[in-house]
Amino acid sequence: MAGIADVARAAGVSKSTASRALTGAGYVSPSTRTRVQDAAAALGYVATTSAVSLVTGRTQTVGVVMPSLDRWFFAQVLEGIQDALLDRRYDLALYGAPPESGARREMFGHFLARKRFDGLIAVGIEPNAHELERLVAFGKPVVSVGGYDIGTNAVSIDDEAAGRIATDHLLELGHRSIVFLGGDPDGRHTSFGDGRRHDGYRAAMRRAGLEASARHVHSEVTMPGGYGAAVELLSDRRTRPSAIVGVCDEVAIGAIIAARRLGIRVPERVSVVGIDDHAHADMFSLTTLQQRPRQQGRAAVQLLMWQLDDPDAPTHRIYEASPLVMRNSTAAIDAEASAIIGVTSHGG
Amino acid sequence: MAGIADVARAAGVSKSTASRALTGAGYVSPSTRTRVQDAAAALGYVATTSAVSLVTGRTQTVGVVMPSLDRWFFAQVLEGIQDALLDRRYDLALYGAPPESGARREMFGHFLARKRFDGLIAVGIEPNAHELERLVAFGKPVVSVGGYDIGTNAVSIDDEAAGRIATDHLLELGHRSIVFLGGDPDGRHTSFGDGRRHDGYRAAMRRAGLEASARHVHSEVTMPGGYGAAVELLSDRRTRPSAIVGVCDEVAIGAIIAARRLGIRVPERVSVVGIDDHAHADMFSLTTLQQRPRQQGRAAVQLLMWQLDDPDAPTHRIYEASPLVMRNSTAAIDAEASAIIGVTSHGG
Repeated sequence: MAGIADVARAAGVSKSTASRALTGAGYVSPSTRTRVQDAAAALGYVATTSAVSLVTGRTQTVGVVMPSLDRWFFAQVLEGIQDALLDRRYDLALYGAPPESGARREMFGHFLARKRFDGLIAVGIEPNAHELERLVAFGKPVVSVGGYDIGTNAVSIDDEAAGRIATDHLLELGHRSIVFLGGDPDGRHTSFGDGRRHDGYRAAMRRAGLEASARHVHSEVTMPGGYGAAVELLSDRRTRPSAIVGVCDEVAIGAIIAARRLGIRVPERVSVVGIDDHAHADMFSLTTLQQRPRQQGRAAVQLLMWQLDDPDAPTHRIYEASPLVMRNSTAAIDAEASAIIGVTSHGG
Repeated sequence: MAGIADVARAAGVSKSTASRALTGAGYVSPSTRTRVQDAAAALGYVATTSAVSLVTGRTQTVGVVMPSLDRWFFAQVLEGIQDALLDRRYDLALYGAPPESGARREMFGHFLARKRFDGLIAVGIEPNAHELERLVAFGKPVVSVGGYDIGTNAVSIDDEAAGRIATDHLLELGHRSIVFLGGDPDGRHTSFGDGRRHDGYRAAMRRAGLEASARHVHSEVTMPGGYGAAVELLSDRRTRPSAIVGVCDEVAIGAIIAARRLGIRVPERVSVVGIDDHAHADMFSLTTLQQRPRQQGRAAVQLLMWQLDDPDAPTHRIYEASPLVMRNSTAAIDAEASAIIGVTSHGG
């Protein structure tokens, strides 16, 4: 079987140049790269871990850590990262690490210390002080997606603005009784962006002079979570809001399903707005703020590769735009119904 | 920093024994393992790729290939695999590889040949002849989950039986006009199990003497896919079936949402049964056949580890039971309505 030395000889370059050309690790002129790739193809050479890493000190692997795999946003980011790494022939080492789990401790302890990847993409992660220390000790490029700004390269929408814009949209339609649905009181068990969206909701309510009536109804950040909480919320006519901001589309869709189940028409009797533009949003006519997590995943790889090529490159914070996508789940408040809310038990 | 040699010396064992004890790669007595682990902890030793792989020839990485990440079944299997690998401190290298995609060719070409993992778990993959050749050439343990039986270790439900049982359930309720919803005509673009479920549906229809009225309505195997196809299917009263078998719960739930949207009551006017027991099934009162993909993922890792420890171990084919979970989306056929179907345009 041909080795890297054979490829280098055939292409008339040094072993380290041949290695760089085949791995994408470091600069090689386009013409040299082509010559080396042709030689490798002619010789049937496939780079093996040990051959590459002995020459470059690289593992050609990128680690990805995220709190959950079974949620649309994370699956989409993962697909984007996967596509972009495949183009560069990097491996993707995956670590699912829910906050405060054993897996999370293992990830930030054992796996990070083992240094089996050239860089790390952290998706929806808010590291605690100890974890931050570990990331610094890791000493390799880190990119954050949809998460806490740890001073590294980062990609996300502006979650705080998204929460604000969603709430402002409802305020402009005349709603005053607006609930923020989904997530924990302190956001510790969900992803970082969820807490920021809630901050945005509160800022918009405050600016509208409605701080006192701001309400956060907690739920698991899933469709059934939003459904269960919304059934309870909407069943009691005395406290039923006229509008709901879902922490994400999955929760917002859960709320729409709950309203339908209770015979409460959307948007006539309750308006619902989400954040994400989930693959199911269109099916439920959900008005929402759009983000494209696949593209965020691709951008994260791009930033990581820049930093791998040039460790002194400045770090970037990319905010993806999140435009409001108008469908049919929000409407101007029904003045008569609104006057009655909280006062009588009139039939909904 | 302490090396493997220091750990071996402190524990009074050979380097290769110390390595086996720390990596789980090969047999070491429990007492030796504890002694080595204590020595490693005392010395602050963390195994690095090169140290481990030079001694054991192992990468301590398992490759996982699946056609999609953004589907409940795959995300759940992945979480199960991830949990089980973490317990053993193995890395998970992920490859998303839709059928006939460039990513799929890269996976079976470049990445497999690079041999950067000790074994491969293939989820929902039906390899073509060329890919099978590559898998054989790979020469390391392969476990199939929810997929084609390639003579290796395998874990799945009996998809053919699941399709049959779901259909039999509807036949027993008196339904005769039963459509199988979801997937492609030839199954090439979906996962392998989907085609087997359709086979089961056809077998049940054939046995009931209804072969001629078996109908496969194609759709993307997603909730919106099932929704779109069901809207079309249910809108035309002349061809509307009295019951639907969804290829999976996501498609079945899409059909329920479509029926609600059209004002067709489930289960009074149309019965729907799914396969999976998806996290959303309960929210939609969906009667379905249960599988637990997380446990399948864990079982796949178990089988892979057995084969890594003993290359001569016999291969196993594990079928997970898939019991029928009765909720509220199926009912005995309404005799009157049934007599009218296909004859008049009476108001649904």
